[in-house]
Amino acid sequence: MKKVCLVLGAGRGIGATVAEKFALEGMHSHLCRRTDEAALQESIEHIQKQGGSASGELLNAIEDGAIENLVDSVEKNVGPVEVLIHNLGAQSGMKLLDQTSLKEFEWAWKIANLSLFRAAKVLCPLMSARGSGTVIATSATAAMRGNKNQHSHASAMAGKKILCQTLNDEFSGQGIHVAHVVIDGAVDAPDTLGKMLGDDRFTELRETRGKGDGLVLPSKVAEAYYYLYSQHRSTWTHELDLRSYSDTPWWNHPNASMAMAPKN
Amino acid sequence: MKKVCLVLGAGRGIGATVAEKFALEGMHSHLCRRTDEAALQESIEHIQKQGGSASGELLNAIEDGAIENLVDSVEKNVGPVEVLIHNLGAQSGMKLLDQTSLKEFEWAWKIANLSLFRAAKVLCPLMSARGSGTVIATSATAAMRGNKNQHSHASAMAGKKILCQTLNDEFSGQGIHVAHVVIDGAVDAPDTLGKMLGDDRFTELRETRGKGDGLVLPSKVAEAYYYLYSQHRSTWTHELDLRSYSDTPWWNHPNASMAMAPKN
Amino acid sequence: MKKVCLVLGAGRGIGATVAEKFALEGMHSHLCRRTDEAALQESIEHIQKQGGSASGELLNAIEDGAIENLVDSVEKNVGPVEVLIHNLGAQSGMKLLDQTSLKEFEWAWKIANLSLFRAAKVLCPLMSARGSGTVIATSATAAMRGNKNQHSHASAMAGKKILCQTLNDEFSGQGIHVAHVVIDGAVDAPDTLGKMLGDDRFTELRETRGKGDGLVLPSKVAEAYYYLYSQHRSTWTHELDLRSYSDTPWWNHPNASMAMAPKN
Amino acid sequence: MKKVCLVLGAGRGIGATVAEKFALEGMHSHLCRRTDEAALQESIEHIQKQGGSASGELLNAIEDGAIENLVDSVEKNVGPVEVLIHNLGAQSGMKLLDQTSLKEFEWAWKIANLSLFRAAKVLCPLMSARGSGTVIATSATAAMRGNKNQHSHASAMAGKKILCQTLNDEFSGQGIHVAHVVIDGAVDAPDTLGKMLGDDRFTELRETRGKGDGLVLPSKVAEAYYYLYSQHRSTWTHELDLRSYSDTPWWNHPNASMAMAPKN
Repeated sequence: MKKVCLVLGAGRGIGATVAEKFALEGMHSHLCRRTDEAALQESIEHIQKQGGSASGELLNAIEDGAIENLVDSVEKNVGPVEVLIHNLGAQSGMKLLDQTSLKEFEWAWKIANLSLFRAAKVLCPLMSARGSGTVIATSATAAMRGNKNQHSHASAMAGKKILCQTLNDEFSGQGIHVAHVVIDGAVDAPDTLGKMLGDDRFTELRETRGKGDGLVLPSKVAEAYYYLYSQHRSTWTHELDLRSYSDTPWWNHPNASMAMAPKN
Repeated sequence: MKKVCLVLGAGRGIGATVAEKFALEGMHSHLCRRTDEAALQESIEHIQKQGGSASGELLNAIEDGAIENLVDSVEKNVGPVEVLIHNLGAQSGMKLLDQTSLKEFEWAWKIANLSLFRAAKVLCPLMSARGSGTVIATSATAAMRGNKNQHSHASAMAGKKILCQTLNDEFSGQGIHVAHVVIDGAVDAPDTLGKMLGDDRFTELRETRGKGDGLVLPSKVAEAYYYLYSQHRSTWTHELDLRSYSDTPWWNHPNASMAMAPKN
Repeated sequence: MKKVCLVLGAGRGIGATVAEKFALEGMHSHLCRRTDEAALQESIEHIQKQGGSASGELLNAIEDGAIENLVDSVEKNVGPVEVLIHNLGAQSGMKLLDQTSLKEFEWAWKIANLSLFRAAKVLCPLMSARGSGTVIATSATAAMRGNKNQHSHASAMAGKKILCQTLNDEFSGQGIHVAHVVIDGAVDAPDTLGKMLGDDRFTELRETRGKGDGLVLPSKVAEAYYYLYSQHRSTWTHELDLRSYSDTPWWNHPNASMAMAPKN
Repeated sequence: MKKVCLVLGAGRGIGATVAEKFALEGMHSHLCRRTDEAALQESIEHIQKQGGSASGELLNAIEDGAIENLVDSVEKNVGPVEVLIHNLGAQSGMKLLDQTSLKEFEWAWKIANLSLFRAAKVLCPLMSARGSGTVIATSATAAMRGNKNQHSHASAMAGKKILCQTLNDEFSGQGIHVAHVVIDGAVDAPDTLGKMLGDDRFTELRETRGKGDGLVLPSKVAEAYYYLYSQHRSTWTHELDLRSYSDTPWWNHPNASMAMAPKN
């Protein structure tokens, strides 16, 4: 039985591409996404055609028991989960407080934060017993500061970030590598950015910025994740930031509202 | 009608003491705590005996609609809420992941994070229409980094911290001052620290450290909150850290596990 | 002999205004600035006319021995230094690396960083022996992140920030309160911002933003500094951020270069 | 002519090991260290014996003109500098303020901060003209917070950190990748840690911790540096943290002075 790379949030951006990378490096990847059976099968077959080993299923990660049952079933039927890719974010566009419902605030917390807690609760004891495991959490600028008009997304991602720190604190000494990856820029991903912008604007953005490497490429994110997995335990990274050379890090954006006067 | 300082989490530590300070400075304080009617009345009477104006009620802040109904009723019957003191934390002691239930993880989020979101949704439009308002959120070291064995507390407080940032981003320009106060040390508070440690250890800690000002004194926290409220809007503080002179800031704790070798 | 508030960098913005505040609260302020004897005398007389106690001198703070001699002379002839206001920054405008000389890089370090180290070396032992003292360092956005085109300023201010942390670590337990104040916005100061922008643009900026409280007002900064000085030692603040309600905190600036796509 | 990896601070820990890695991957490494010609030759020959290409020289990096002359000579006689490894730190042990001389404070700034500025001033224009280049700065916990009793080291490293940010801001769009690597733990390095601890304690530490991977292994740091160099420009990392699985990140150290009471 091959070791398993379990991907939660295996859309055709970072998720499926990371699954592909780990499979082509010799693991078995198990892909989960909420909807679109056709896209899921396409991603699995894309891996298999290249000689990789993969399986998957549709999964609503915020349903009670869904993650617990998934891990149980994968461990029994597919193989031991060596790597968890938690690629579930809570991006839902720009909204004023007034436009952000209680339901959306709860959904964001469930999808980005609680689902990682649930997965950790079932996986960490197994990984700890085996003496090794890797948990990589895809994160975002919003985890680092309260992005404008992202009350629900930012709050949930910040909770996710700090949960990565408490998990790391408890489990690194037991051989579990927890890494928090801040994707600090727009990703060339049809299932997320594409849907947010609509086809035309996404295509335009890709043409104008993507060709200049201005969008974060999922295949290169996958290399970063595989590097994190490969790190020797004497030299682990907890937090990795990734952005395009042509973009500005979140901490360094200039003050648009003070164009006349320099920041102090 | 006096302007109202509404205190969520008015225990006999920071909460009731802040209510007292604002009342003695001329506002009306409305105190809410989940249990202990006797302690609540004691706090209210303590303010009134000094000539301050105060009222209050028991409130379960995580119950659906509780905060919305409270704000509605206070605005109608008590006065306009000029200041919100969100003093609800999610501290529940030291627990391994295994000991942290889903229920506790959800409770922590509801009490520390969702309740602020709910309060902001009803209060910010009112404050914005009046052109002024102050929201002060009591926070903790755990909001800044993932405190050891505090999976639920840390994750919830981190979400609260970033929510303060998104609220500040949307509402500071509308005259609402949102401040996040990091209490980075043990507080001389019988209702929280006292209950965590038990009577004997709390008394011992007070004797040994408190007399040397080693515990954060609620009356001095109250002065800090009142200073934040008093700041002129040309010069607002978003984040304030408070600790005893005899304590070490969270970012500077030495590496106990590396006693032999200095940190790099 | 009155206790002394020693101000390094007593220009007619934050420096002289803080000196005025501490003097009017009952201390003696000693003002030091590098040039402009007339402006210095004007600041001193402005304090004296209001009944405050003040003196001062021109001082080149980066000259070898200047700070040591100053402290020696003030302690002998003026009174014990209870408060040090280190208001020396290294702002020199926007410059590409190519335009930033070795000389400027060294100057920035000397004025913003080394001068605080020198002052601390002579003052901390005196304050420690007396069991109390306050050191307030005026700082800037550039200390928190590497401001665009401010290689020399940012590097020097970051060093200043961390020096405040090591000083706090060694001396807070000895009763010395070290505070680092991040002025995160343009200050209504003729001697710094005024000179950078030139008279016309400064006047225009004041008219358009200042009247809407869009510039940080030195008199309100002075109140913040006095509040820090007044804090009880059970509840000290190490870092305070200050900005106008109408400005955006540095960590929350939007990504101007990615107008089409939201930050992740 | 091979592309050159220029290593400033090529001691027998991280520096020489990184030089070895880049040479064995096909570049030419040029090693510079301040003293010990024998150790330098040993490091060079160690690379050559494995088939790598290497050269080197003794260099006092804080001498006026030393870095400028070095770059000039390497570019002329060895090859184009594609990668700069700035491995110069300012660690000088634990010292109270009183024990930290002005000379040491200046030395720390010159070695850790100014030398990077000097190197960047001569190298960035060359790299920019060629459209590519990588600058990797070895950094330390002390750059992130003011390490206890490290006034000079911490202040200098913080300046180095922020200089990396301003360099990144100006040059990433020109194809120069600037990365700041925080080594957050003791390194298994005879030339630095070994000298600090003395032979006996260093051997003891290696035996007790090193075998359990408790010391950061230079060969694994070298892999991290090579990974950073290899990153595609759509997905660059600016800051990487590295520590042993058995160590605690700096932000998560427990409060030794508050053993009785949990952090808030």
